[in-house]
Amino acid sequence: MPNDQPRAVTIAAIAEEAGVSVPTVSRVLNRRSDVAPGTRERVERLLRDSGYRRRGTRADGAGLIDLVFNDLDSPWAIEVMRGVEDAAHAAGVGTVISAVHREAGSTRQWLSNVRARASDGAVLVTTNLDPLLHEELRGLHVPAVVIDPAGVPDLQVPTISSNNWAGGVSATQHLVALGHRRIAHVAGRSTLCCSRARLDGYRAELRAAGIPLDPELVVEADFNFESGFRAGRRLLDLAEPPTAIFAGSDELALGVTEALRRARLSVPHDVSVVGFDDLPLVRWSSPPLTTVSQPLVAMGRLAVHTVLRLVQGERLESTRVELATSLVVRDSTAPPPVR
Amino acid sequence: MPNDQPRAVTIAAIAEEAGVSVPTVSRVLNRRSDVAPGTRERVERLLRDSGYRRRGTRADGAGLIDLVFNDLDSPWAIEVMRGVEDAAHAAGVGTVISAVHREAGSTRQWLSNVRARASDGAVLVTTNLDPLLHEELRGLHVPAVVIDPAGVPDLQVPTISSNNWAGGVSATQHLVALGHRRIAHVAGRSTLCCSRARLDGYRAELRAAGIPLDPELVVEADFNFESGFRAGRRLLDLAEPPTAIFAGSDELALGVTEALRRARLSVPHDVSVVGFDDLPLVRWSSPPLTTVSQPLVAMGRLAVHTVLRLVQGERLESTRVELATSLVVRDSTAPPPVR
Repeated sequence: MPNDQPRAVTIAAIAEEAGVSVPTVSRVLNRRSDVAPGTRERVERLLRDSGYRRRGTRADGAGLIDLVFNDLDSPWAIEVMRGVEDAAHAAGVGTVISAVHREAGSTRQWLSNVRARASDGAVLVTTNLDPLLHEELRGLHVPAVVIDPAGVPDLQVPTISSNNWAGGVSATQHLVALGHRRIAHVAGRSTLCCSRARLDGYRAELRAAGIPLDPELVVEADFNFESGFRAGRRLLDLAEPPTAIFAGSDELALGVTEALRRARLSVPHDVSVVGFDDLPLVRWSSPPLTTVSQPLVAMGRLAVHTVLRLVQGERLESTRVELATSLVVRDSTAPPPVR
Repeated sequence: MPNDQPRAVTIAAIAEEAGVSVPTVSRVLNRRSDVAPGTRERVERLLRDSGYRRRGTRADGAGLIDLVFNDLDSPWAIEVMRGVEDAAHAAGVGTVISAVHREAGSTRQWLSNVRARASDGAVLVTTNLDPLLHEELRGLHVPAVVIDPAGVPDLQVPTISSNNWAGGVSATQHLVALGHRRIAHVAGRSTLCCSRARLDGYRAELRAAGIPLDPELVVEADFNFESGFRAGRRLLDLAEPPTAIFAGSDELALGVTEALRRARLSVPHDVSVVGFDDLPLVRWSSPPLTTVSQPLVAMGRLAVHTVLRLVQGERLESTRVELATSLVVRDSTAPPPVR
């Protein structure tokens, strides 16, 4: 009768200790004949000594990956989760969700839980990865992939994000094509890479269309509703207010829309609004929002495929993948009013 | 070296087979002295024979509960999840999420996964529980609790819902207090218990206020945006349209709001709108929505506490718990226009 829980051991840790590849350890576990006798013996001894408990990532459905959010407040969390759960389910792997931002000790607690439940891999969803977290995961030999809609560039871990610059171009292009010339941009904080990329896309498209950039028309904001509301007010107070506003996120766009409603301006008849993200809720906003769609579900699916490849000891072609964004036209954009 | 995964066995199954209580099995596992020698021997033999693998629900963080949704599309899924994850994390238990609606085989696959990973308990979030699912969970000796915002009454399993009738009363009371007399209700399908309870709350309050019920003002709809939009149109086409609309869900309320916007009517200056649920997104709707708040996060927390009590073999005081709803007044309600 097992009386105390052995510290969980992964195939990757055994492989490292034995100085062999992960597939070799798998072959030993699966009693295949294509392993040299000396290697087999060394791996089997390590497996025995380490108290390795086999989970079986595929066949019996006992495999687990951890899906970690800074918090579950973000409206795009559920979108990413749908993709992760779907791909994990298809691979017969369970998805354990965690939120780690709440208190100082919770990241440490989570790491201890990952160890205890012998998770096969981790998908981290964050725009602000704790470098210590990643360091400790490496120590546990748990492969990790970061889904990062904000696109932080310099992580030492595989990341999946979307093409923010191209999204900024397509939003602005749509407004230019409708005939707008006074196009404002409510940008997220320039400390975030995604904000800078979206702003640069906006600038590039204005330049391409021969529209001079008016610095008054770019307002920096936090990625939340209230900040969007304030940015909208500020743009309406200009001597020559914009006829179209490209907001750097859906939540910002909804704040801008509320500022317009309070000013008794109609969207899109007086002012057009474009968002960024394509959260499900913007289909139901009043009016339904034209926005740049980030493929959050696909990003979740790809993260699972990537982490399962790492679990199998495969090498990735690239540690940074950006998926394409696409413009979704709904009812919040129209030609500018005739003056 | 363990070569094949033993079928996972729970303490509850051992207890049943040994004819003792779950706490007795726990005492044997913890090597406590307050167990009769014959009982100890019988339990230890069963544990050995069954290949019982200890997970340790608390101390080492290896415990798991399964959180199961019909699908992850519902905007309230993430709210329930926040409560579940929070309470499970505090108890040192991991939360495995699953969606089972997608294809016919997925419920069976999920059951097989629950067995393989030796989940300690399950929290099911559904308005439409498959009776077979519950039957099979009983067979696996995995305690389950259902979170059911729709309040289905006749399940043979502990359920947690909210007080829908009182919510219907409070929404209607708020509109009556503002001076409305032509108050419409967009009700969910009468096949759902929650829809009937909300409608009855609306009727009860009109009666209490001495306002005669006009059957024209009650429109049945599906719980989605498009159906709310159509219901809103139908109410506006009446010879004497309502000055206030109480919608049976937030999504319905957003559909109604869109119908009003298309008809160039202002919310709340021309027509007041009240929703039901208090999803985070309605704080950002234009205008921010007055609604009846269901305590979805608290329901998630309570479900975890309840399922962990069942895991410990405790008896519940009641198998049906309804938490209180509360009215949240925002900007979508005002006195009726002066005619």
